[in-house]
Amino acid sequence: MSSLKFPGDRELDFIALGRACVDLNANEINRPMEETVTFTKYVGGSPANITIALSRLGARTGFIGKIADDALGRFIKQYMDKQNINTENLVVDDTGAVTGLALTEIKAPTDCSILMYREHAADLELKASEVREDLIAKSKALLISGTALAKSPSREAVFQALAYARKHKVVTILDIDYRAFTWQSLEEASTYCNLAAAQCDVILGGREEFDILELTAGPDTKTDQATADYWLEGKAQIVVVKHGGNGSIVYTKDGTVYKGGIFPAKNMVKTFGAGDAYAGAFIYSMFQNRPLDKCQEYGSAAASIVVSSHSCSDAMPTVEQIEALIAAHKQVQE
Amino acid sequence: MSSLKFPGDRELDFIALGRACVDLNANEINRPMEETVTFTKYVGGSPANITIALSRLGARTGFIGKIADDALGRFIKQYMDKQNINTENLVVDDTGAVTGLALTEIKAPTDCSILMYREHAADLELKASEVREDLIAKSKALLISGTALAKSPSREAVFQALAYARKHKVVTILDIDYRAFTWQSLEEASTYCNLAAAQCDVILGGREEFDILELTAGPDTKTDQATADYWLEGKAQIVVVKHGGNGSIVYTKDGTVYKGGIFPAKNMVKTFGAGDAYAGAFIYSMFQNRPLDKCQEYGSAAASIVVSSHSCSDAMPTVEQIEALIAAHKQVQE
Amino acid sequence: MSSLKFPGDRELDFIALGRACVDLNANEINRPMEETVTFTKYVGGSPANITIALSRLGARTGFIGKIADDALGRFIKQYMDKQNINTENLVVDDTGAVTGLALTEIKAPTDCSILMYREHAADLELKASEVREDLIAKSKALLISGTALAKSPSREAVFQALAYARKHKVVTILDIDYRAFTWQSLEEASTYCNLAAAQCDVILGGREEFDILELTAGPDTKTDQATADYWLEGKAQIVVVKHGGNGSIVYTKDGTVYKGGIFPAKNMVKTFGAGDAYAGAFIYSMFQNRPLDKCQEYGSAAASIVVSSHSCSDAMPTVEQIEALIAAHKQVQE
Amino acid sequence: MSSLKFPGDRELDFIALGRACVDLNANEINRPMEETVTFTKYVGGSPANITIALSRLGARTGFIGKIADDALGRFIKQYMDKQNINTENLVVDDTGAVTGLALTEIKAPTDCSILMYREHAADLELKASEVREDLIAKSKALLISGTALAKSPSREAVFQALAYARKHKVVTILDIDYRAFTWQSLEEASTYCNLAAAQCDVILGGREEFDILELTAGPDTKTDQATADYWLEGKAQIVVVKHGGNGSIVYTKDGTVYKGGIFPAKNMVKTFGAGDAYAGAFIYSMFQNRPLDKCQEYGSAAASIVVSSHSCSDAMPTVEQIEALIAAHKQVQE
Repeated sequence: MSSLKFPGDRELDFIALGRACVDLNANEINRPMEETVTFTKYVGGSPANITIALSRLGARTGFIGKIADDALGRFIKQYMDKQNINTENLVVDDTGAVTGLALTEIKAPTDCSILMYREHAADLELKASEVREDLIAKSKALLISGTALAKSPSREAVFQALAYARKHKVVTILDIDYRAFTWQSLEEASTYCNLAAAQCDVILGGREEFDILELTAGPDTKTDQATADYWLEGKAQIVVVKHGGNGSIVYTKDGTVYKGGIFPAKNMVKTFGAGDAYAGAFIYSMFQNRPLDKCQEYGSAAASIVVSSHSCSDAMPTVEQIEALIAAHKQVQE
Repeated sequence: MSSLKFPGDRELDFIALGRACVDLNANEINRPMEETVTFTKYVGGSPANITIALSRLGARTGFIGKIADDALGRFIKQYMDKQNINTENLVVDDTGAVTGLALTEIKAPTDCSILMYREHAADLELKASEVREDLIAKSKALLISGTALAKSPSREAVFQALAYARKHKVVTILDIDYRAFTWQSLEEASTYCNLAAAQCDVILGGREEFDILELTAGPDTKTDQATADYWLEGKAQIVVVKHGGNGSIVYTKDGTVYKGGIFPAKNMVKTFGAGDAYAGAFIYSMFQNRPLDKCQEYGSAAASIVVSSHSCSDAMPTVEQIEALIAAHKQVQE
Repeated sequence: MSSLKFPGDRELDFIALGRACVDLNANEINRPMEETVTFTKYVGGSPANITIALSRLGARTGFIGKIADDALGRFIKQYMDKQNINTENLVVDDTGAVTGLALTEIKAPTDCSILMYREHAADLELKASEVREDLIAKSKALLISGTALAKSPSREAVFQALAYARKHKVVTILDIDYRAFTWQSLEEASTYCNLAAAQCDVILGGREEFDILELTAGPDTKTDQATADYWLEGKAQIVVVKHGGNGSIVYTKDGTVYKGGIFPAKNMVKTFGAGDAYAGAFIYSMFQNRPLDKCQEYGSAAASIVVSSHSCSDAMPTVEQIEALIAAHKQVQE
Repeated sequence: MSSLKFPGDRELDFIALGRACVDLNANEINRPMEETVTFTKYVGGSPANITIALSRLGARTGFIGKIADDALGRFIKQYMDKQNINTENLVVDDTGAVTGLALTEIKAPTDCSILMYREHAADLELKASEVREDLIAKSKALLISGTALAKSPSREAVFQALAYARKHKVVTILDIDYRAFTWQSLEEASTYCNLAAAQCDVILGGREEFDILELTAGPDTKTDQATADYWLEGKAQIVVVKHGGNGSIVYTKDGTVYKGGIFPAKNMVKTFGAGDAYAGAFIYSMFQNRPLDKCQEYGSAAASIVVSSHSCSDAMPTVEQIEALIAAHKQVQE
């Protein structure tokens, strides 16, 4: 069972801080982008996807970020509003920034790549002074996307948000979400993610992401157990190491370890979005006070649904879809 | 008749220097981009469009520029190769630059806007030392896009190309092609376009573009005639002032003035690309030694065809299409 | 008595990380710089001055920093070597950086100003990977200058040094040392100094410096007591608030408060360097296990000596000079 | 006789555009800077020195530039005012720029080096819109320092000044004044100096400077004669190639070549400032309508006087000093 206690009686279950961007997903798949003719537009960005996932599942959510003052920025806001996400702290940029773009190329279900447009992206322009203490104060949990630490002034905004969360006893979650393209160096990424991780109750990441996190300070050996021991000795109460197709391992402060598997997708389209779907359903299940192994199961089911779809954000499943998948899977196993 | 003499006996008729980018044109038109769902991908960028136009008409062409080391960069090169454009001087970037993007929004045929991605665009990374003297030496004419002057090192590459053209007596053409988004200030745009214009035999631009060109040095009054007088007193032999839907005026060193009209499009989709189509067909006709009023007519016909299509580059007409339009138009008038 | 326990049996008492620069002090004083004719050159920079102060008093010291690859850089190294400061981790820059300069103008003893040359200063080029864990591991205490947090990569180097200190149980001291000229904004300064302060055993600063430190996270009221309460609830064991001519207040984790006065200088030349002299003699006295009020006394005496001299670094007093001043002062009081 | 005709009846003989900085010259000479103790402060910067030289000789001069909003900036203005230089177009910076500094190290009379502080130097912040057309219009000659072309917005200011000079038939002089530290690349330096040189009546430079100037466009061979032929075929009427201790060669449009020698200094202190003194006295002599060989003689005498002094600007000679040197020299030769 989860040792994590969320504050009761808050208006919002969940608020995330970070990037909300636009995905342009190739419609003609299983070919290189040179031969792609058309693209479909979706809201994207890891923390946006996770928030949409939670909202789709019924959680009361909010988003802290900055959008470009253009049609794509307005598209993001309109989409979030439709998902019942609180967008009061979605600030409109005034520096001439653009909406981050991700053009996806799907050569094969397991051979996908992304062409990123992240120069002067609006999300990294969020300032510390623009983060609203009142919104954080009325949330049970705050999720920080590691990518939001990649540049000033967004980096300062993250530490401001964490200070507000500490002050108001909001549970803090770090999704390491390492993306090479926005950082100057691995050292830089490690330094700031490490400072943020030291302030978080829950840390989620892949093995490679924890390796980067621990480059400047951490355990001497690079194993999941050493990682868990190091962070759980500090503020963290739960450490989740995601292993993609090999499932996930959850470690808690009391020493319990949960090894979770996956639900193999029958018709996988692409691997994008699996991690965000997992994180969204896992966190949602914690709000439901489910045991951590059930949280893992929910996360894996959501991931399986998303990798079978063309979109990430738009394909985030409902509770019914997840439970149907789990039920179908059990039947098969019996 | 045109007073412009092109050098004979050259391998290429025409070579252009500047940006080759990607257009993502909204498929669902007559609505704001917030409601656009899909986009189609084309090669774009004014000098690329003009070169494609000339190639489609049968001219022997080449392109000097820099492309991103990614799928979109490769797409541009493959497309140009298919158009029989010489791409020997299409350099692949090694600075991590991206392909410039233009997302078009077509709210109404005459209410179009473009969302530009131009930060760290590959085309502006072309260096002076990468410009090939031998390719310029074997061309009759070199076209410079004013946008290539917007940033170092591309700015230096333009002046290097002009120096090579001077040395090898290549006819030089400036398309002012002013785009606000890449310049620091109007003063900066004026300074460098002015220095380039002073070295060109042909100068093409809209009235507003000439106003910017002449901000730092030029005639005291801002009229087409004053503009023509000022530049024709220097190196320029032909000045073309484009007036969009009101046609164009061509001025020559010997004092002749040609006022040209337009061919109204029956089913106009958007206004993009009209200027590039005009420039391409106008220049092509000069190679054919046509009188300048005939060059104008060819240019206008090409523009009319392009505004009736969804694409710019891909819609550039053949000689047959242009002549068919002119013939049809004459029949109507008779 | 100080509650601070230093690790025993270490090769170095003290190591500081931050800037070592050059001061050019006007020789013709009591006039504006327009009328200054000549300048004398000294080593400067707050952490360098503090290290020199400790070394002069007999402590075994070291310095972590980066110097320009030029004559002024070599001058700094030679001067430190002469002061018996360990310079093994004084890295030579290879980015073309310059030595930070401070041109001082002394209009009147209490009307001094500094003209700073800090653009591309070598000290801010220190990288995390250049910080030597072994040197920190063999020191009793590490002093961080807040100014070293002003820019990447030096900012990351500070957090790396703090991680090494934590690992090797080295006492950590933050001298806030706020200098407006190197920061983008007060928010930025507050964010990173705050993250560093949370990892330090001793925090020194003026009242205005603590106000900046606490801008993004801290007590609701801006008083010395609230400041002390806030930080002493965390990792800090000693908080020193410096009040210039009004002395200093020292707060400890066990709730003791020490109010210290000053030794008025008979022939004050300028106010520069007083704080560095104070910090050096205060820290030195802690190594001597003196009660904190005696540490304050030593600090104040050192400050009094330095403000009576033309230089900062070069005027740092010996133990004999400090004790003579204290003795003379007591005689007067009797 | 000089073929150069200056416009008559103008209020100012000479106006220069470029940097005015501060030199800090080591007082303890013949040693490395590590061992220097004190420095003396002077106004410096090549175009400032040349203007001071002309003013000292009795010409009516002015200066176009930008100074830092600090004590050193005010020092420059006060010094120029005392020299009777028109400072109406000496703009005060508002971007936080600093006064450029040159710390000189004199190891031996012929082994001197300079430590430059040029990051965010005020002089390079001059904008095109700040250049006053009226002041240029009332000058006989405008001198451009090549270093002013090193960065935007000063680069645009130079081309604006040249456009005003062209409009008002002011004689234009380019002092190539190449300094490696402010340029991104040799290509960049060559490109803009070349564009400026093409607009100038007089071009002065050392052999190495002409080599850089001609890197992107120029004669195929790198000889003084080829250089002269190339530029004199364009707008230039006089080309001066300075050869330091080996004198100078002056080429004119009509094909005349003047080879000039030097006046060896008996007690040379350093080589700095020789070129500026030469340029100032050479240009002054042209205003006096002296034959070009006499202009060379005047220039060489002025250079000989400056290299025998500790300062550059402050040591610029009067007419009497120059004529005394020439007379003394002739006596010796007889």
